Amino acid sequence: MTDFKSILNADVALINEKLALYVSESSFAGRESEGLSAMLEAMEYSLSNGGKRIRPVLVLEFCRLFSGDAVSAVSLACAVEMIHTYSLIHDDLPCMDDDDMRRGKPSSHVKFGYANALLAGDALLTLAFETALSDSSLDFSVRVKAALELAKAAGASGMIAGQVMDLANEGRQAALTDIAETDKRKTGELIRVSAVMGCIAAGASDEQLSKACEYCEAIGLAFQIVDDILDVTGDKEELGKPIGSDADKNKSTYVSCLGLEESKRYAAELTEKAKAAVSGFENSQFLVQLADELCGRSN
Amino acid sequence: MTDFKSILNADVALINEKLALYVSESSFAGRESEGLSAMLEAMEYSLSNGGKRIRPVLVLEFCRLFSGDAVSAVSLACAVEMIHTYSLIHDDLPCMDDDDMRRGKPSSHVKFGYANALLAGDALLTLAFETALSDSSLDFSVRVKAALELAKAAGASGMIAGQVMDLANEGRQAALTDIAETDKRKTGELIRVSAVMGCIAAGASDEQLSKACEYCEAIGLAFQIVDDILDVTGDKEELGKPIGSDADKNKSTYVSCLGLEESKRYAAELTEKAKAAVSGFENSQFLVQLADELCGRSN
Repeated sequence: MTDFKSILNADVALINEKLALYVSESSFAGRESEGLSAMLEAMEYSLSNGGKRIRPVLVLEFCRLFSGDAVSAVSLACAVEMIHTYSLIHDDLPCMDDDDMRRGKPSSHVKFGYANALLAGDALLTLAFETALSDSSLDFSVRVKAALELAKAAGASGMIAGQVMDLANEGRQAALTDIAETDKRKTGELIRVSAVMGCIAAGASDEQLSKACEYCEAIGLAFQIVDDILDVTGDKEELGKPIGSDADKNKSTYVSCLGLEESKRYAAELTEKAKAAVSGFENSQFLVQLADELCGRSN
Repeated sequence: MTDFKSILNADVALINEKLALYVSESSFAGRESEGLSAMLEAMEYSLSNGGKRIRPVLVLEFCRLFSGDAVSAVSLACAVEMIHTYSLIHDDLPCMDDDDMRRGKPSSHVKFGYANALLAGDALLTLAFETALSDSSLDFSVRVKAALELAKAAGASGMIAGQVMDLANEGRQAALTDIAETDKRKTGELIRVSAVMGCIAAGASDEQLSKACEYCEAIGLAFQIVDDILDVTGDKEELGKPIGSDADKNKSTYVSCLGLEESKRYAAELTEKAKAAVSGFENSQFLVQLADELCGRSN
């Protein structure tokens, strides 16, 4: 447990340090402009807003699991976090979920205005690719393969398809299969590609890649189920958002479809499945523990 | 002139064919979903909306000028057109320029709704990188260099900085230097990077790259000045948008700062500068003629 926490803290510290650097003025030396400063401020605001950094941690830890140099994969880790953050900014916009708060702070459009929030999201999406592609410590082939997988996972058939389906599900009692398919795209694809990029950076085998995907598919789904459970049973302060917001929006969730107890049982089952996918590899303790932590979390 | 038109038509036909393919269901075989179809429809609608394809033509023609295989650069050409198209979709949104019409047809958000237009823009931006990175006819190093330049040009210090400055300029009498700086980012960066990507695909020298940038900086600025002139003197039917929209918005333009005659003179001077930058190279006739056509255009 102590080991787990210290590794997690070290990973998150490295990720946060690099993220801050990528959106600092110094990273854009020679490319300054009035418009840039306004953007960097909005990008930094959302990037530093207390996320759990699960996706970038998965990049580093799957790279490490398969004997890669995790530190050299930090650019890829930051890239996926930028994509995740842009998607939250755009999801919160009035034309999408219309959420004024994000992790206990005003949403980007509340803080910076609608147009700047839109553009800050666009800029983070674009910077994700600049970040992954500009890391000269990675071979050209690694950069292409990793950024390509990221683009596919984030694109029209991946995360964005999930956002479209999520909007379609709102205000109707969607079936469990619709919810599962939506979550698989909307949150599952970025979680999966995090492990995939870590594997690419490490030069992992197809067999290793396949086990990594199995792990991520299970924790991705479990993560979403726990989210739905916390929306019913959680603590407003710990979550940083109101409780019952799904029910208020008449949104179908795992809890509304399966009930609370069955949802908890299913999340636990998926957690065991995730652990089984990686436990055969040496040094998998961190990822095994991470699955347990994500399932047992309170925010 | 006949040669120019036939080359241009062949380039545009190739670009249009490939663009249609990239947003077709068949390109996403094995990745189908309900959300994907809705996105592809919206992406295709805006991509096929009668653009002049100046940016992708510049990719192909600078590749050809420096003895590269222009056909192999078509993925890069399509990538920059996708970025251009996404920026138009987001620019037209109510929170930005709030334009209901684009090239004589309803804007994306009028046709598909606000959320879908936002997401279709995001999806095109993402697909641009997928397209550039997935072309196995290009070396890994070419793909990395070209996509990285594209990300920088489209990002927070490039096109997006220009969009931020453009919003700041609205409703105030901006100085000519502000307008020039805004245009250099908002439209100039994508025009410049089109030539840069063509040069990268051709393996051009630094000297050739520098001349290509000189050409693009001049035509980029001339193009914007002609846009402002046409907003005063143009024909509504040919332009596909109302005349006088800049004045209605109290927007500073080259015409409002310099007057009509001085604006025309300046555009002509920049056109000569562009032609001079490339006319020393063998087979530069197309690019010389293109500069003249862009300056003398009526839409």
